[in-house]
Amino acid sequence: MDETSAKSLRLHEELQGKIEVVSRAKAETNEDLALLYTPGVAEPCRQIQADYGKSWELTRRSHLVAVITNSTAVLGLGDIGAAAGMPVMEGKCLLFKEFGDVDAFPICVDTHDTDELVRTVQLISKSFGGINLEDIAAPQCFEVEDRLKELCDVPVFHDDQHGTAIVTAAGLLNAVKVTGKKMGELKIVMSGAGAAGLAIATLLTHMGFGNVILCDRKGAIYEGRDGLNPYKERVAKITNKDHEAGSLADVLVGADAFLGVSKPGLVTPQMVSTMNDGIVFAMANPTPEIMPDEAKAGGAKVVATGRSDFPNQINNVLVFPGIFKGALAARAPQITEEMEIAAAEAIASLVPEDKLSPDFIIPSALDKTVADVVAKAVADRVKR
Amino acid sequence: MDETSAKSLRLHEELQGKIEVVSRAKAETNEDLALLYTPGVAEPCRQIQADYGKSWELTRRSHLVAVITNSTAVLGLGDIGAAAGMPVMEGKCLLFKEFGDVDAFPICVDTHDTDELVRTVQLISKSFGGINLEDIAAPQCFEVEDRLKELCDVPVFHDDQHGTAIVTAAGLLNAVKVTGKKMGELKIVMSGAGAAGLAIATLLTHMGFGNVILCDRKGAIYEGRDGLNPYKERVAKITNKDHEAGSLADVLVGADAFLGVSKPGLVTPQMVSTMNDGIVFAMANPTPEIMPDEAKAGGAKVVATGRSDFPNQINNVLVFPGIFKGALAARAPQITEEMEIAAAEAIASLVPEDKLSPDFIIPSALDKTVADVVAKAVADRVKR
Repeated sequence: MDETSAKSLRLHEELQGKIEVVSRAKAETNEDLALLYTPGVAEPCRQIQADYGKSWELTRRSHLVAVITNSTAVLGLGDIGAAAGMPVMEGKCLLFKEFGDVDAFPICVDTHDTDELVRTVQLISKSFGGINLEDIAAPQCFEVEDRLKELCDVPVFHDDQHGTAIVTAAGLLNAVKVTGKKMGELKIVMSGAGAAGLAIATLLTHMGFGNVILCDRKGAIYEGRDGLNPYKERVAKITNKDHEAGSLADVLVGADAFLGVSKPGLVTPQMVSTMNDGIVFAMANPTPEIMPDEAKAGGAKVVATGRSDFPNQINNVLVFPGIFKGALAARAPQITEEMEIAAAEAIASLVPEDKLSPDFIIPSALDKTVADVVAKAVADRVKR
Repeated sequence: MDETSAKSLRLHEELQGKIEVVSRAKAETNEDLALLYTPGVAEPCRQIQADYGKSWELTRRSHLVAVITNSTAVLGLGDIGAAAGMPVMEGKCLLFKEFGDVDAFPICVDTHDTDELVRTVQLISKSFGGINLEDIAAPQCFEVEDRLKELCDVPVFHDDQHGTAIVTAAGLLNAVKVTGKKMGELKIVMSGAGAAGLAIATLLTHMGFGNVILCDRKGAIYEGRDGLNPYKERVAKITNKDHEAGSLADVLVGADAFLGVSKPGLVTPQMVSTMNDGIVFAMANPTPEIMPDEAKAGGAKVVATGRSDFPNQINNVLVFPGIFKGALAARAPQITEEMEIAAAEAIASLVPEDKLSPDFIIPSALDKTVADVVAKAVADRVKR
C-alpha cells in the first residue's frame, strides 16, 4: 500500500464518515417539539399537499442533491459492489458542501439492472432538489441518465460525463486564446470513448470548437464504422466530418489539440511532434496519456492533466458544486446544454486575461470562489 | 389556521429544512483532496470490496439511519403524497440527532405498491446502518416491515408500531407499580387495531402483563371473529383468551387498564367508572379518547396521554433515538423483541422508585439523558 493510500485509510477510520446529518434547530422545550414536530408540522405538510411547489420552500429540498451510484465504475476500480463505492460518494458529498455549500447525500443502489436503478432513483427523487449520478458504467449510464431526465422533475446530471465535458471545455477555451488558434477551425483528436469522452466530444462540437475526432481502442470513430454502440453512433454523426480512419497516431497528425480520457502512456513525444503546435490535455488519472515534460518535449504549447502536481489541473470539482448550486437557486427542472456552456465560460472567465499563460489556463481546483461564479452564470441561463 | 400551525409554518419557511448535510473534514489543500477523495479514497473502497464489514468502519453507516415513508399515513392527515410527508420525516430526523446524536436522513418513496416500496428500500439499504419506517398505512406497513426484515442486513423498525409499543409498555410497567396491581393478572382493554394497537397488544402479551382485549370499530377482537385481516387474526390468537365479545364499553367493565390509540372521545367517565381502579392511557393525538380530568372523574388512578400539557406524556421520542443508537453501537443485524423489552424496562427505570407517583410514571419527553440509557440497555441485549 502506498503512503497516500495508507494515510487515507487511517483518516477514514478516524473520521467515521466524511459527512454528517445535523439538525438546523434545537429541540429543548415543548414548544420546540410542537413547532418542529407534532402537532405544528402538520401545517407545512398540508401546504405541500395543496401546492407541490411549496416542497422547495418548506423542506431542505432546495439545498439538497442526491449523489447516486450503483458502484459499477468506481474510479479505476470497476464494479466493486454497492457498499464499496460509498467512500467515493461521501467524498463527493464533502466536496459539494466544502466548495458549493450544497448539501449532498450519498446513496449506493445495489443493482446492476437498468430498470431497477432508474425506478429506484425516480421513486426517491421527490426528496431531493437534484440528482448527481456518479460512477455508473458506460453504456448503462447513458440510458439511466436519459430515462431519468424524462421521469424526474429535478435536474439529473451524470458528472462523469457532463462535469468532465464542462471543465475540459473551460480549459480549452483558454488554451485556444493562449495559443492564438482560431475557434471553429480546430482539429481536436480525442482518446477514450467512454462516458467522459462521448460527452466531451458532443459538448465541444455543439460549442463550435471545430472538428472533433474521437478514438476508441480500434482507432478513429466515423459514421458507419464497425462495432459502434448506439451512443458512439450518435456521436459519430456529428464528429469526424471527413470520415478519417486510422489509429490515434494516424489522426493525430496535424491536430491542434489532443484530449485524453483513456489510459496511461498512449501518446508519445513523437506523436505530439506531428501535431500543429499542439494543445495536450492528458487527463487519464492518476497517470496521464503522456507526462507533461514529454508532451512539451514533443512540442506541445499548452499541457493540462488531471493532477494537482502539474499546472493546469482539469478537475470536475470546478463544475459540480457550482452547476448544482445555480440549478437549485433557480429551481431549474433540468440542467440544459445552455447551462453547461454557461458554466464552462464562467470557469474560463475566472482566469484574468492578463494572467492567461500556457501554465495558467484554468482556476485552481482549490479556489472556493469558483462555485458562486459558476452558480450565478448557470442560474442566469435557466429558462423561466 | 391555529396559532401553532401558523408559527410552525413561519418557522419552516425560515429554516429552509430542519436537517442539513455537512462535511466532517475540511478540503483546503491538495493533500486534503488526495486523502478525502482521489486518489486516496480508492483504498477504503478496496477494503470494503474485500471485507463488507469494513463498510461500518470506513463510512458514516454506523451512525446513520434512513427515515423512510411512502406518506400514506402521515400524522392524522392520511395519504398526502410522497413530497408532503417530508416535513414530518425531517422532524423525525431532527429528533434522532437532538435526542440520540444519531444521524438520520429522510426519504419519501413515491409509490403505493408494496413490492416497489420493499425493493426500493432493500436496494438502498447498504447505504445505512438502520431503517426506520414511518407513517406507512396499515396493513401495508406490516408486510413491508416483515419482508424488509428478511431482506436487509441492518435493523428495520417501524416506529409507529414498535416505538409506540415500547413507550406504552414502559409507562404501563410503572403504572402497575404505582397502583399496586399484579403483573400477569391485568385485564387490559385497548381501542384501536391499527399499526400501533396491534404492536402494543403483541408486545404487552409477550411481556406477560396479562390478558389483552383489543377493540376495533366493530368491538372486541377474538379469534374467529368476522372481518379480521390476517394481522388482526394473528393477534387474536394470543389475546382475549376468554373470547369476550361486545363493544368497547362492554369489555371495559372490570378492566385494570385502558389503552387508546384510536379516536377522540371514545371513552366516557361513566365507562371509566366500570373499570377496576383503572389505569387510563388515552393516547389519541392531539385529542385523547378521554380528557385526563374526565378520566379522573370516572375514577381512574393513573392517567397518561400523548400530550405535553398533561402529566405522563407517552411519546416515542423516548424510544427511537436510543433504540437505534444502541442497535448501531452493537452493530445489531436487527432489533429483536428482547431488545424492545430492554428498551421499555430502561425507560421505566429512569423514574426513580422514590419519585414514582400517579403523575410521574414516565420520564419527560424532553429528557436528553434517556437515549443513552436506552442505548446501553439495548446494546447489552444484542446477541453476538
